[in-house]
Amino acid sequence: MRLEDALTLVREVPDFPEPGVLFRDLSPLLADADAFRAVTDAFAAEIPDGVSTVVALEARGFLFGAALAAVHGFGLVTVRKPGKLPVVADSVTYSLEYGTATFELPEGVVEPGANVVIIDDVLATGGTIEAAAGLVDRAGAKVAAVAVVVEIAALGGRERLAGHNLRSLLVV
Amino acid sequence: MRLEDALTLVREVPDFPEPGVLFRDLSPLLADADAFRAVTDAFAAEIPDGVSTVVALEARGFLFGAALAAVHGFGLVTVRKPGKLPVVADSVTYSLEYGTATFELPEGVVEPGANVVIIDDVLATGGTIEAAAGLVDRAGAKVAAVAVVVEIAALGGRERLAGHNLRSLLVV
Repeated sequence: MRLEDALTLVREVPDFPEPGVLFRDLSPLLADADAFRAVTDAFAAEIPDGVSTVVALEARGFLFGAALAAVHGFGLVTVRKPGKLPVVADSVTYSLEYGTATFELPEGVVEPGANVVIIDDVLATGGTIEAAAGLVDRAGAKVAAVAVVVEIAALGGRERLAGHNLRSLLVV
Repeated sequence: MRLEDALTLVREVPDFPEPGVLFRDLSPLLADADAFRAVTDAFAAEIPDGVSTVVALEARGFLFGAALAAVHGFGLVTVRKPGKLPVVADSVTYSLEYGTATFELPEGVVEPGANVVIIDDVLATGGTIEAAAGLVDRAGAKVAAVAVVVEIAALGGRERLAGHNLRSLLVV
């Protein structure tokens, strides 16, 4: 399946998770084996040479990050919400629209000097990815690219992540 | 890599998430590209003919379920914690050791009559997988198999899931 056809399966749901927000639901795309594979392969085509590791963000980033890692032969590292990892190397607390959130990086799985790609489903304000990139930096690894399925241009994530090699499969 | 070698990367962490529990941490296995692929392929070898869809349980089940689906050509359906899905087909509340938890199934992605495999990382008491299997049943699909990386035999999950075609890559 062509990537363009796969991306037609992104479902728009108004007023989720709150009034006025148009949510991009990737469930129908994931449920179509050919579409999921097309997206996985499109991610792979965006990865610079020398990348060894996919860093996938909880939870929807796990879906695309794991697929990319398994199909194309990368190691997989998860960035997780608090309380999930038994051995934590580092953590970061970052601002959301209301309140804060925390991400944790597991101990002993990011090699210093490694080139990694950060994978998530949607780029909105960029705060989540910026926080994950900080964890990777502090682990001594290099963020060679950041890749998402959907970039919501109006929310300014690309500007916030200026300086990163940002790839998005669909810009809305 | 042979599956047996991949499984040596499962890391045991005592007293997580609470005193007396020996946690099986799959982070080092995921971070090794060859080991992750070996586990993914071992899952595929356990899948009966006629399965079209992988049902992956939030959140660690997403990692192995997505890999299996993308490498071996299955559709992927996520079973999620509350508040994450914009369009919910059905939900189930089930008992944990302390309190309850709820799982939700997305609307419009499980085909009635489909044969599915449920994937999770660890089988403990079986309550989580039993709940997910109930959602699949009520959607009119058939649970052709349940597959996990690690089965903790002493917790009785296999007995609780009697009647299901349960496959585990490692029994501890």
